[in-house]
Amino acid sequence: MQNTNSYYAVIFTSKNTDNTDGYSKMAEQMENVAKKQYGYIGFESAKETIGISISYWENLDAIKNWKENSAHLFAQEKGKSDWYSWYKVRICKVEREYEFGDLGLSN
Amino acid sequence: MQNTNSYYAVIFTSKNTDNTDGYSKMAEQMENVAKKQYGYIGFESAKETIGISISYWENLDAIKNWKENSAHLFAQEKGKSDWYSWYKVRICKVEREYEFGDLGLSN
Repeated sequence: MQNTNSYYAVIFTSKNTDNTDGYSKMAEQMENVAKKQYGYIGFESAKETIGISISYWENLDAIKNWKENSAHLFAQEKGKSDWYSWYKVRICKVEREYEFGDLGLSN
Repeated sequence: MQNTNSYYAVIFTSKNTDNTDGYSKMAEQMENVAKKQYGYIGFESAKETIGISISYWENLDAIKNWKENSAHLFAQEKGKSDWYSWYKVRICKVEREYEFGDLGLSN
């Protein structure tokens, strides 16, 4: 993950409905489309009781641009109609960070 | 989760080692101790390939105070010696947020 002086994190926390039709495929597609967007830095996600997905962006413009991407708009609508009973989006400025250990080359 | 005008998110992403002895118990203890700290707002976590834990705090002082809590310092040392091969901590200011649907009373 590239790390410029200042960047943003979009925290997406969610609860899914029982309907998982097409969800994984769409999630994978969206990750692939996001990667090609201007200002994209990286992506992390994990799911247990709730899902947490965090995408990292160079600036607020890049976040706005991604939010308005047509494929992403379609996914957002499907998310609200089919897959999510709840979600929350937080747009955050990363002010400080530090790291321990080695993530490993394969990750 | 209480929501004041401005608040912070601490994003903790991690990869675990194969050693899980005492890990879940410690994680549960830390969540209970954190809840009693000044400025604590809430906590969310999920784990798959990586673990993502996000704690929410009223201000940077509260985050510093929690980082220096003695029980938490002990847990941090155990984390580095035993449980984590990698982690990254990002301290973020939540600048904007929005929500969809209903999380449900039981959550």
